[in-house]
Amino acid sequence: MSLVTLIEYADASAEVKAVYDDIMRTRGVDWINNFWKALANDPAQLRRIWDNVKQVMAPGALDPLVKEMVYVAVSATNGCEYCTYSHTAAARKKGMTDAMLMELLAVAGLANETNRLANGLRVPVDRQFIS
Amino acid sequence: MSLVTLIEYADASAEVKAVYDDIMRTRGVDWINNFWKALANDPAQLRRIWDNVKQVMAPGALDPLVKEMVYVAVSATNGCEYCTYSHTAAARKKGMTDAMLMELLAVAGLANETNRLANGLRVPVDRQFIS
Amino acid sequence: MSLVTLIEYADASAEVKAVYDDIMRTRGVDWINNFWKALANDPAQLRRIWDNVKQVMAPGALDPLVKEMVYVAVSATNGCEYCTYSHTAAARKKGMTDAMLMELLAVAGLANETNRLANGLRVPVDRQFIS
Amino acid sequence: MSLVTLIEYADASAEVKAVYDDIMRTRGVDWINNFWKALANDPAQLRRIWDNVKQVMAPGALDPLVKEMVYVAVSATNGCEYCTYSHTAAARKKGMTDAMLMELLAVAGLANETNRLANGLRVPVDRQFIS
Amino acid sequence: MSLVTLIEYADASAEVKAVYDDIMRTRGVDWINNFWKALANDPAQLRRIWDNVKQVMAPGALDPLVKEMVYVAVSATNGCEYCTYSHTAAARKKGMTDAMLMELLAVAGLANETNRLANGLRVPVDRQFIS
Amino acid sequence: MSLVTLIEYADASAEVKAVYDDIMRTRGVDWINNFWKALANDPAQLRRIWDNVKQVMAPGALDPLVKEMVYVAVSATNGCEYCTYSHTAAARKKGMTDAMLMELLAVAGLANETNRLANGLRVPVDRQFIS
Repeated sequence: MSLVTLIEYADASAEVKAVYDDIMRTRGVDWINNFWKALANDPAQLRRIWDNVKQVMAPGALDPLVKEMVYVAVSATNGCEYCTYSHTAAARKKGMTDAMLMELLAVAGLANETNRLANGLRVPVDRQFIS
Repeated sequence: MSLVTLIEYADASAEVKAVYDDIMRTRGVDWINNFWKALANDPAQLRRIWDNVKQVMAPGALDPLVKEMVYVAVSATNGCEYCTYSHTAAARKKGMTDAMLMELLAVAGLANETNRLANGLRVPVDRQFIS
Repeated sequence: MSLVTLIEYADASAEVKAVYDDIMRTRGVDWINNFWKALANDPAQLRRIWDNVKQVMAPGALDPLVKEMVYVAVSATNGCEYCTYSHTAAARKKGMTDAMLMELLAVAGLANETNRLANGLRVPVDRQFIS
Repeated sequence: MSLVTLIEYADASAEVKAVYDDIMRTRGVDWINNFWKALANDPAQLRRIWDNVKQVMAPGALDPLVKEMVYVAVSATNGCEYCTYSHTAAARKKGMTDAMLMELLAVAGLANETNRLANGLRVPVDRQFIS
Repeated sequence: MSLVTLIEYADASAEVKAVYDDIMRTRGVDWINNFWKALANDPAQLRRIWDNVKQVMAPGALDPLVKEMVYVAVSATNGCEYCTYSHTAAARKKGMTDAMLMELLAVAGLANETNRLANGLRVPVDRQFIS
Repeated sequence: MSLVTLIEYADASAEVKAVYDDIMRTRGVDWINNFWKALANDPAQLRRIWDNVKQVMAPGALDPLVKEMVYVAVSATNGCEYCTYSHTAAARKKGMTDAMLMELLAVAGLANETNRLANGLRVPVDRQFIS
């Protein structure tokens, strides 16, 4: 159960509907996922987060599939169930195969391991990495 | 100050030297960074972690630069200073530009934000993402 | 399924019942939530944690609603499902509205984002913040 | 050492200067802290993050001091050194005393403790918290 | 629902079956838990992770029960539901009682609390701890 | 620089001195480390945290060295620099060797890795672990 009401399209204000329409148009889908329905309780925040997602996830110096996979790796690191499901689905739509997912999580897992080895041993940063 | 002695090449056992040599050969460098010098206090662990890194970071379904950038994103998420410096340096050697780094961290930052919105609102996973 | 037995009031020792009674009296409720029933497997720990909660969450330099909202923000950051539900309920009892919850999570989300930008870019602390 | 160049006002593009000016005007200060100088390597991202901060941290259902303290609690939870210094300074400017800081961290610390007790014992969410 | 197919013994390749057999033999059990069935989508990764677990969790300078309890404490800290269930079960098989579990989580919880107090107050490391 | 004044013994109130004396007596040392000097800004909190540490870290179902090592593993997981230094020093005083530290961090590192694999693949908990 969500901690706030999930606002369905039919019940949404014009302001919220405008964002919902933009999400569906941009993504080429005909439904709104629950994350946005929860955020819609604060229409200004819904707009803000969507604008951020649109800007950050757009093609740029990195391609959208790479971005989506980075999103998955971070979501797995943070243990966010919702985000892991939703961004894995998004990455698959953009071309991520099972083999790519397995390698992606292998890298994320290994980074989580060596992060703790470096932090636990308090390894000093090498001069060569700083200059 | 590291919590264990950093083992220099000159002071290393044959077992440790063999790993050091493999690291330098594989990476085409002529020095060993402190992370390995700390791990060398447990030669079996040094060997194990290095074998993992070699296997996981090798070209496969994902290319090595993408893997290195995922490593940076996870390290930034976990706040590992050493890993952030060392893997950013590695990613740059593989071709990451400043523009790519800025976009990479933008994605990692945004994921960290929406992970907490989804977790804080306890948004239920949409059926469409699970099937 | 909890990893330890949830100890119901009827089955509790006198020592545990004394804490349960204090919890219900202090909070003006007539039931004990599962967190305490799990902790009751170690009566000394049950007493210790409850004493901590009573002391830390009491009115002081910060008012109890602010404290409860900070608890929610931290729980969302850590992805603790149980704590997010229980402390959101507690905050609502103390006056938190949906609008306040949405803003609270917006702040928590943004902090999680910029924490990673600062950590990922290894931004040096400005002298002005340290003096 | 930052991983990207810190862009000083004198060296900034017109686009970056406009954001810097807005930051100084909004906050009533005459200097730019390093976080923004690092973000300025990607002017669009600098603008985006600043716009987010301005919108999220503005007075609303929660007052700005409460928001700033939530920011501090999240930054301490994530172990972000830069953010802990900068947002503690900001909270103090808005009226946070040492006594308030001590209580704030007491709440954040306790939440981090009970989050792990609930997660480690896998305590099931009480029906009363969900309805 | 797992994000990848869980590969049952009957459907597994010879390479995967060899690892499954080794897991069952080493642990003295006659079934494979889901973690390995998910990893089996990438046989090389299944082998790698299992070899790591075998090496790291073997008796050494620390006894296997202590290692298993450390695993539980870390899994509770990270909020990993699967790992908390599976490693608590493993620790119990090796002799962990309810009293030990309660104390273990008390330590893990307290560490999570004081970690944030130290990080939030930015306490400088005492010279005595570094020499 | 600490975010609050570090309160030296000579400048402490009688209430704070009483806790400082108890810390030194209990630990058999003749100095107070900075963590307590920072907490002393809130004498009730200083007393509370010290009482928690004394109770939780005392011999019980687990021996003090095991508890101290769990503390180190959690601190490394959270990336707390202060706590990693101070609790590694404490564990060494109780008998932890370099070999034990290396194994401890190997376990903590591996747990951090597999936590993300399980979370990233959303592996369902096996029935056998729950009953």
